[in-house]
Amino acid sequence: MIVLFTDFGDAGPYTGQMQARLLQLAPDVPVVRLFSDLSPFDVQAVACLLPAYCSGFPPGTVFLCVVDPGVGSERPGVLVHADDRWFVGPNEGLFALLARRADRVDCALLPLPADASSSFHGRDVFAPVAARLAMGDRVTAQAQPAQLLDRTDWPDDLFQVVYTDHYGNAVTGVRANEIETSATLNINGHLLKAAKTFSAVPHGAAFWYANSNGLIELAVNRGRADEQLGAVVGNAFRSE
Amino acid sequence: MIVLFTDFGDAGPYTGQMQARLLQLAPDVPVVRLFSDLSPFDVQAVACLLPAYCSGFPPGTVFLCVVDPGVGSERPGVLVHADDRWFVGPNEGLFALLARRADRVDCALLPLPADASSSFHGRDVFAPVAARLAMGDRVTAQAQPAQLLDRTDWPDDLFQVVYTDHYGNAVTGVRANEIETSATLNINGHLLKAAKTFSAVPHGAAFWYANSNGLIELAVNRGRADEQLGAVVGNAFRSE
Amino acid sequence: MIVLFTDFGDAGPYTGQMQARLLQLAPDVPVVRLFSDLSPFDVQAVACLLPAYCSGFPPGTVFLCVVDPGVGSERPGVLVHADDRWFVGPNEGLFALLARRADRVDCALLPLPADASSSFHGRDVFAPVAARLAMGDRVTAQAQPAQLLDRTDWPDDLFQVVYTDHYGNAVTGVRANEIETSATLNINGHLLKAAKTFSAVPHGAAFWYANSNGLIELAVNRGRADEQLGAVVGNAFRSE
Repeated sequence: MIVLFTDFGDAGPYTGQMQARLLQLAPDVPVVRLFSDLSPFDVQAVACLLPAYCSGFPPGTVFLCVVDPGVGSERPGVLVHADDRWFVGPNEGLFALLARRADRVDCALLPLPADASSSFHGRDVFAPVAARLAMGDRVTAQAQPAQLLDRTDWPDDLFQVVYTDHYGNAVTGVRANEIETSATLNINGHLLKAAKTFSAVPHGAAFWYANSNGLIELAVNRGRADEQLGAVVGNAFRSE
Repeated sequence: MIVLFTDFGDAGPYTGQMQARLLQLAPDVPVVRLFSDLSPFDVQAVACLLPAYCSGFPPGTVFLCVVDPGVGSERPGVLVHADDRWFVGPNEGLFALLARRADRVDCALLPLPADASSSFHGRDVFAPVAARLAMGDRVTAQAQPAQLLDRTDWPDDLFQVVYTDHYGNAVTGVRANEIETSATLNINGHLLKAAKTFSAVPHGAAFWYANSNGLIELAVNRGRADEQLGAVVGNAFRSE
Repeated sequence: MIVLFTDFGDAGPYTGQMQARLLQLAPDVPVVRLFSDLSPFDVQAVACLLPAYCSGFPPGTVFLCVVDPGVGSERPGVLVHADDRWFVGPNEGLFALLARRADRVDCALLPLPADASSSFHGRDVFAPVAARLAMGDRVTAQAQPAQLLDRTDWPDDLFQVVYTDHYGNAVTGVRANEIETSATLNINGHLLKAAKTFSAVPHGAAFWYANSNGLIELAVNRGRADEQLGAVVGNAFRSE
């Protein structure tokens, strides 16, 4: 299975073009669009989501990860083998937290094909490698080892909003098991208590909870946390 | 074929996570994203859409229906066998009109798996059942019969907007064959006459018509009915 | 492979309904959603995109193209065989530029099935033909030849914005090899110089570049060109 983890949007051409390329190179491998609406410029935020949302996928899954504000610059693409899963994408820090939590990590440099465009490496550089991996071709054998950009300055848990979903819920970069359930979270002056799920609080009430992927999420029962709490990606909060 | 009928959004993680789960459990069954933008809190509106939009799918199709404002509460999930199609989702009224119009309906209770999250039953409760059904496993044999929430207080035809589409057209909960084509519809003071289709009225003119799934739809030729008529989901209208 | 090139939106029912129809008629043919957010009323803009974005797909690919402001009117549907690819859609000018650049073009009339709806020809008229083509059925043998609407009044390169993408970049109807890289482009009074790619200009700077499909695109590094330049579909610009 190839899983798409990008900021490409769903309706426009980029996800479809990448999917068409995968289909030509690996016709029998199913492709799942996991995220198409990641924050395009906040690589640290995306790096917090990746380990949480890649868990639950079977061994051998190939993640095609493209949030690439520096596309066309000198930064190379990499192939990361973390425990039993594969990750392909730009070496901009996207894989930093994932690698930190893995038992075993190998990282290889992806050469830039001569005919690659300067603005669409997802289609021209990363998709062909993902397709070969998914077909069982161990690409790393011929690849040059690379140093993963490991961003040791980034904390393990990021007390910021890292994604706002379709309902307006604000996913944070904090793992749920790092916070006491008695904690009060303060975001933009709003004080939130924990609840088990939406239906446990009144309509219109804001709360925090451990979401279904193990991250702290700020939400409003039958309302939009992004609007009601002013929560946007990059917005900091604290535990009190 | 498994058909997704949800309020999950397309670009975010939920549709993809559910699709990945289906792929693991029923690798050869195609999955179609029919609706990802249903109204999250108006179950009655969604209940009007389901019978109209599930017609035309072949016998044996499994509909995975998740509009679930009460997720995590005590309400159970159900499996509904209505004539020759299968429906899986929360027992919140979603299947009420569908069942009312079917010749034969069976309803079974879905047990809550011990490891299910409290906020994502689409992935953890409903998808596994849909996958088994699509693989030909008659899940009902082992299931406890359930009482379908049949909402006898809901009318057969709902004189409200139940969905606004990508173009701004306002789909209503009224079946086209329940209204005379000579009727004038009044929504927010705008008076609409029937037309056969868009090109039958001038640019910018509002009209109503029988849409391609048999529901009354309010539209504007080369314009947006949602903006021009102020039509939103839940908005009432009347026939004059 | 069947490629969807429409203004249907992704989340609503239309793309899914068309995909379900394709799946029933051509179960083993993969379907790729390339564009779902084309401009619904600007057929000339869409006609500029089609030849640029259909290149790169393998011979035999079937493009299901539906931007159809005149649906339900007298205009017929057509099947276009341009070099080694197939195109199905309304004869409203969508295929004019594509045909002009092809070495060999055949065009056949699509009969309107008796049970077709008056508003959803994508599902009822075009999808069944696309499915038959993708299955290897040479539909044209039984079809009546048609005159392609060739819009000789439309220029080869359109100095207008023809699409704004998910990031706010403004794709134009001008092929990159028709403009000197020394050119300055003037849109709404903003003067743009060429750059090779995003990272070649400072954050917040506007520029133009040859996009990965060979069209001139107006962009802002880590910003939105649509907002910063006021660029919308149909907006004219000139080279100075």
